[in-house]
Order: sequence, then structure tokens, then C-alpha cells
Amino acid sequence: MSREDVSTLGLGKNRIESLTDGIFATVMTVLVLSLSVPVITSANVSSELVVDLESLFPNVVSYVISFVVIGVYWVSHHAVFHFVKRTNRQLIWLNMLFLLCVGFIPFSAALIGRYPYQQITTIIYGANLIGAGMSLYVLFWYSNSNNRLVSKDQDERLVRLARRRILAGPVIYSIAVLLSFLDPRISLALYGITPIYYILPGKIDVHWSHLN
Amino acid sequence: MSREDVSTLGLGKNRIESLTDGIFATVMTVLVLSLSVPVITSANVSSELVVDLESLFPNVVSYVISFVVIGVYWVSHHAVFHFVKRTNRQLIWLNMLFLLCVGFIPFSAALIGRYPYQQITTIIYGANLIGAGMSLYVLFWYSNSNNRLVSKDQDERLVRLARRRILAGPVIYSIAVLLSFLDPRISLALYGITPIYYILPGKIDVHWSHLN
Amino acid sequence: MSREDVSTLGLGKNRIESLTDGIFATVMTVLVLSLSVPVITSANVSSELVVDLESLFPNVVSYVISFVVIGVYWVSHHAVFHFVKRTNRQLIWLNMLFLLCVGFIPFSAALIGRYPYQQITTIIYGANLIGAGMSLYVLFWYSNSNNRLVSKDQDERLVRLARRRILAGPVIYSIAVLLSFLDPRISLALYGITPIYYILPGKIDVHWSHLN
Amino acid sequence: MSREDVSTLGLGKNRIESLTDGIFATVMTVLVLSLSVPVITSANVSSELVVDLESLFPNVVSYVISFVVIGVYWVSHHAVFHFVKRTNRQLIWLNMLFLLCVGFIPFSAALIGRYPYQQITTIIYGANLIGAGMSLYVLFWYSNSNNRLVSKDQDERLVRLARRRILAGPVIYSIAVLLSFLDPRISLALYGITPIYYILPGKIDVHWSHLN
Repeated sequence: MSREDVSTLGLGKNRIESLTDGIFATVMTVLVLSLSVPVITSANVSSELVVDLESLFPNVVSYVISFVVIGVYWVSHHAVFHFVKRTNRQLIWLNMLFLLCVGFIPFSAALIGRYPYQQITTIIYGANLIGAGMSLYVLFWYSNSNNRLVSKDQDERLVRLARRRILAGPVIYSIAVLLSFLDPRISLALYGITPIYYILPGKIDVHWSHLN
Repeated sequence: MSREDVSTLGLGKNRIESLTDGIFATVMTVLVLSLSVPVITSANVSSELVVDLESLFPNVVSYVISFVVIGVYWVSHHAVFHFVKRTNRQLIWLNMLFLLCVGFIPFSAALIGRYPYQQITTIIYGANLIGAGMSLYVLFWYSNSNNRLVSKDQDERLVRLARRRILAGPVIYSIAVLLSFLDPRISLALYGITPIYYILPGKIDVHWSHLN
Repeated sequence: MSREDVSTLGLGKNRIESLTDGIFATVMTVLVLSLSVPVITSANVSSELVVDLESLFPNVVSYVISFVVIGVYWVSHHAVFHFVKRTNRQLIWLNMLFLLCVGFIPFSAALIGRYPYQQITTIIYGANLIGAGMSLYVLFWYSNSNNRLVSKDQDERLVRLARRRILAGPVIYSIAVLLSFLDPRISLALYGITPIYYILPGKIDVHWSHLN
Repeated sequence: MSREDVSTLGLGKNRIESLTDGIFATVMTVLVLSLSVPVITSANVSSELVVDLESLFPNVVSYVISFVVIGVYWVSHHAVFHFVKRTNRQLIWLNMLFLLCVGFIPFSAALIGRYPYQQITTIIYGANLIGAGMSLYVLFWYSNSNNRLVSKDQDERLVRLARRRILAGPVIYSIAVLLSFLDPRISLALYGITPIYYILPGKIDVHWSHLN
């Protein structure tokens, strides 16, 4: 392990964060492209336009929720990387796996926005978010276990709180996927509510404040 | 207040500005995607192409105005952040709200470019700009009230001028939305004229110059 | 003049360059989106696919030329900004005008790639490049005249060489637009050849080397 | 040679890396746009949606492989640039050539995702990857030969290992293109397997670790 750990291939933390920020910025912007301007062929443009725009409403909801979900992952990613002191090949590729999942969200979001009440789209959206959350968790776990890429004097309680917080997302999304077998609308509600948990201040903020 | 205020979750001002710049850059570029190349099926390509391109003229106007409007918000955002000295969870998420509104502009712009004389598109475009402007104002107000995230020795007159300047946009756009009930073209004119107010130097520049 | 000149609105050279780099990166990537994957409905996929891909050849040429043209503008922009020591409101908005023109290139490039032998597309492409080149020239002229935003000890001969080099593009593109009235293919040839002038080392490199 | 070598046109290593990172981030995100949400016209939405999504499976595979391939190039590019100490006009334009190839991958990936078993798409995808790999190799060779843009005390064995590693990709992809004449599926398998060679740690990591 020792040998690869120090190898950074010229890719320090800053460069990885720079690519990550760039991908997040583009992903968040590309989300809106799933909203396509209605093409109206009938003579009565005014009334048909209103009807067509109303049918875009689920897409708008999907845009807002997905934007916030991606924002949550961006914040979490930076919290995880805040403690990373060294980089290695494994970290780079675990981060790529995370970015691969994040980069897929515009498709899942467009899909669930177009067919919000179909179970299959609910499952794909949930699976996508679980993939992003779990790859971030593995990245977090990999950096922290045996203080592999973090400094030795980590606050153990902070690490435990962070672990719980990062795992909460995938756990809730897994439940949402299971509940889609009952009714996809329950899953939708869970997808919409979960980000609020991450936006509101929690126990972990107390620890952060001690660090600063 | 005290506890969350110092908590930055590893997200300093630089990282937030970096994501913001990335989203602005992508949003400004994505605007042009609403201009689709005409598909011509008739035999007389030359003459039909000219006609089709002429019909894209409102889209080009929307591209130019929206590009400049987003540029105004970019400048305003940096002016607001220039004074921010600390970050916290609330600032991050108020900024996300602002970015969510900015990220929606390519859709509103494509819509008003395609249907410029429909009241509904005029309202959506105006509402989008009001949302962006008001979220920036809240962000500004939040950072400045009680010197929450800014330094204590703020020039009160500069803050007052900045507040007025930031609020001017949403106020004018609200009037534009109301006037769309008379004639959407009045709203269009207001959308086109407003950025000029922000581009031209104003009283506030005198204060900026004293700071530098 | 004096008062606005020092006012930077919190937007230093670095932030303006950061937005510029972001827009350039996105514009260069978005170019490829004009190449759409053929949709084949007939039974004989293999042979139809080859025919359809051959018809995309002008789009590929437009992609390559436009990518290089934008690369030339990126290099020129940085050469211009290398000497800028102060920023002001006018510089920010002249830069926005430049970016607005650069951001339009993906549309012009898609248009000329789809209809390469139509005079109208040749003119639009040329006008777009002239707009970008001239706005960069105005930006250059504005910063340098009376040493407004540059340091006082500029090498006058370097400035003269740079001026000629920046103006060469718009001049050649104007000639290309005029020659499109004879035959659009002459314009196409000029659009393809011009970047080579900028890529090859010239007199100006000698001066750059003295600076370093 | 001497004169151009020191000329950087105001474009240091950092700015070139910044544009490169921006283009990589956008390219990796734009990949997902080739996955288009199915438009369903029949009454039986549920069952048709599942069928349509299944037909997108090759596109998803292409997304994943292409994302990883681009990730490999990003890592390789940074390894190459890690040793670059000076920039010049040639380096800038060799880097542009590399970016031009990378920027084309979203089209090739969409094409092979749509028509995975056609020889022509297999060849285009392979040729695109060979172009990217070879331009990176030329960039590497140009910087290193005669220690042109790198420091004089390069570890010769590391340079040899890096050369072999960079060339391995284009060589394998060339074999894949040739084997497509037997069966395109062999090429597909090679495209999928190759990135694994780059992700796994190799001999070169030992050398990297000595450097750090």
C-alpha cells in the first residue's frame, strides 16, 4: 500500500477539486436542457402554449430537486475533501466513479421529469442518487480508514457524525426505491424531502464550528 | 447564530465563487443552444434559408439581452461577495438558490425568443429574473445585516447605494410583468433597457473608487 | 475618467480571466453538439450510415476550423490581458461584448457546417468572427491608449505589432465576406487558412521572448 | 528554436491547465446528452418505456467507457504537464490539437452508443481515441526531447516508462480498429478493457512515489 499512497501522478488535491467543480457546474447547468420549448403547430398559440407549459411542470420540479440534490453532493464532497491531505491513484479513480454518477443525473432527472409516475423512472433516479452517495461514502471511508489520506489527529466523533450523514442519503433513497413498488409518488416525496435534511444545520455544524 | 456562522464545511469564499463562475460560464454558453439550425426540406434552399434565419431574429435578440442580463448578475454577485469575509451554511444555500434561478434563464430565454409576443412567456422570463435578483438581494441582506458575514467597518452609504442598485432590477422587472397585461411588447422593451442602467457607471462607482 | 478607472467592483483581472476561460472551454466543447448522430429508418443500416456520416463531413470541417479559430482568440485574449494591470467597468463590459461574440460561434459554426455553400451562412460566420475580433481590438485599444489600464513602460513597437496582429483577423474576414459575393467557397478557404497565420510563430514572438 | 521557446504569450502552464480542465469537465458532462429521453406515443406507456430504456443500454455502456477513457486522458495529461516547466507557442497548439480530439469524443461516443455493432462507428471511435493519444504523445515527446520544456534532471527511466504507457493506448486502439474487420465486437471489448490497464497501479507508480 505504502508505495502507491504517496504517488499523486502530479494530481494534487487542488486539480481534482478543480475538475470536480467544473463537472458540478456543468451538470447543474445542463439540467435545464431537459426543459424543451414547446413547438406549437395549431393556430391558437396562446392557449396551447399555456397547456404545453403546464405539462412541463414535473420537469421544472425535477430541475429544482435535482439542482438541490447535486448542490448537497457538492457541499458533501468538499466537506470530505477538506480533510484529505494526500492524493493517490485510488482516490483519483474513486472520485471519477463519483463524478460518473453525478454526470448521469441530468439524464435520470430528465427521465423522471418526463415520466414522473412510472416506477421504472423512479427506480433509475433513485439508483443514480444511491450510486453517487455510495461512491462518495467509499471515497470518504477509503481516505479515513487507518488515516490513509487524512491527518492523524482526526476528531473521531466528527468522523462518525460525517459517516452517518453521508450514509443517510443512500439509505433513504434505497427505502424510496423499495417504496416505489407500493406507489412511485411516495418515492417522489422522499426525493423531494431528503435534501432539506442536508440543508438544515445539524449536529455536525457544532463540530465544524469547533474546527474553525 | 454564533455556532453556524463560523462553520464553513470546508467551503471557503473561493470555492463558492469558483462554482458560481463555472455555472455562469456554462449558462452564458448554453444560451446559444436555443438557436437551432433550420432544417430545410424544400428544393429552394437559398431563399428558404433566408426566411428561416429571419424567423430566428427574436431568438438572437433574446440571446443578446439574456447574455447581458446574466453578465449584470455576475458583476453584481462579485460586488456582493467582495465584502463577504466569512461563509456559513446559510450563505452557501442562499447562493445555491441564486444559482438555481440563474441556471433557469436559458429555458426562459429560449421560450421568450421562440414566442416573444405571448404574455405567458413574458411573465415567465420576468419571474425568472425577479427570482435571481431577489435571491441575490436576500444573500446581500443576510451577509450585511448585523455585519453577519462582512467586516465591521462597512461604509453605510455604500451599503445603502448597493441595496438600491440590487433592488432596482427586481422592481423594474416586476413593473414589466405587470405591464405585460397591457401589452407584452412594453415588457420586452423594459427587459432590453434595464441592463443599460447597470452597465453605465453610476453613483456607486464613486464609492468603489474610494475603496481602492 | 479617473474615478471609474480605479473602480473594479471587486472584479480583478483574475476573476475576469476565470469567467473567460470557463466560457471558452464550454464554447469549444459545445461546438461538437452540432454534429448529430444520424437516425436511420431504412433496413440497410450499414450502407445508409456511411452515406449519412459522409454528409456530416462539412460539419466536421467546421468543427475543426471553429475550434482552432476560438483557440486563436483565446491565445490573443490572454496576450492582451497579460499587459492589463487595472480593471474597470468599461473593461468588464468590453470583455462581455467579446464573450458574447465568442459564445455565438457554436451557432454560426453549426449553420455553415450544415449549409457550407450558401452565401448567407458564409456572411453570418464571417460577421461573427469579425465581431469577436473587433471587440477584442477595442478592448486592446481601450486598455492601451494613454496607458489607461496598462503599465507606463510599454514597449511601443510590441504594441504596434500586437495591434496589427489583432486587426489582421477582422480585415481578412471582411475580405472573405466581400468575396462571398463572387463565390462562397473562396470565403471558406480564407476561413480555413487564416488561423494558420496565427498559429505559426511571427515577428511578435521575438518581442515576447525579450520580455521573458 | 531558442527564441520561440521562451515566448509564452502570457500563457503560463496554469492557464493552459485551466482551459484543459474546463474542457475536460464539459466534455465529460456533455457525454450524457447523447442519452435522449424516449418519446412515447402509444397508450401503454409503462411497457413501452421499459423497452425503450433497454434499447438505450449500449448508450449507457458507451457513456461509462467514454467517461473513464476521458478520465484516463485527464490523468495522463496532468502527468505529462507535471514535468513541463516552460511553455511556448508549439506547446499551446499541440495542446489545442489534443483538446480538439478530446472535444470530439462526445460525438464518437454517441455514434458508437447508437450503432454499437457497425464497423464504421467502431473505426471512428477508435480513430478518435488514437488521435487523442497520439497528440498527447507528440506533446510529451516535444516537451521532453532535448529537455526542451522540462528540467534537465529528468529521470530517464521514468521518461521511458511514461512513453511506453502513453503509447500503449494508441497501439491497442489501432489493433482494435484492425480487428473490427473481423468483428466489431472484438474492438468493443478492447475499448472497454483498455482503461483498466491505466486505472490499475503499475511500474510507473513506484517511480512517481520516489519523486514525492
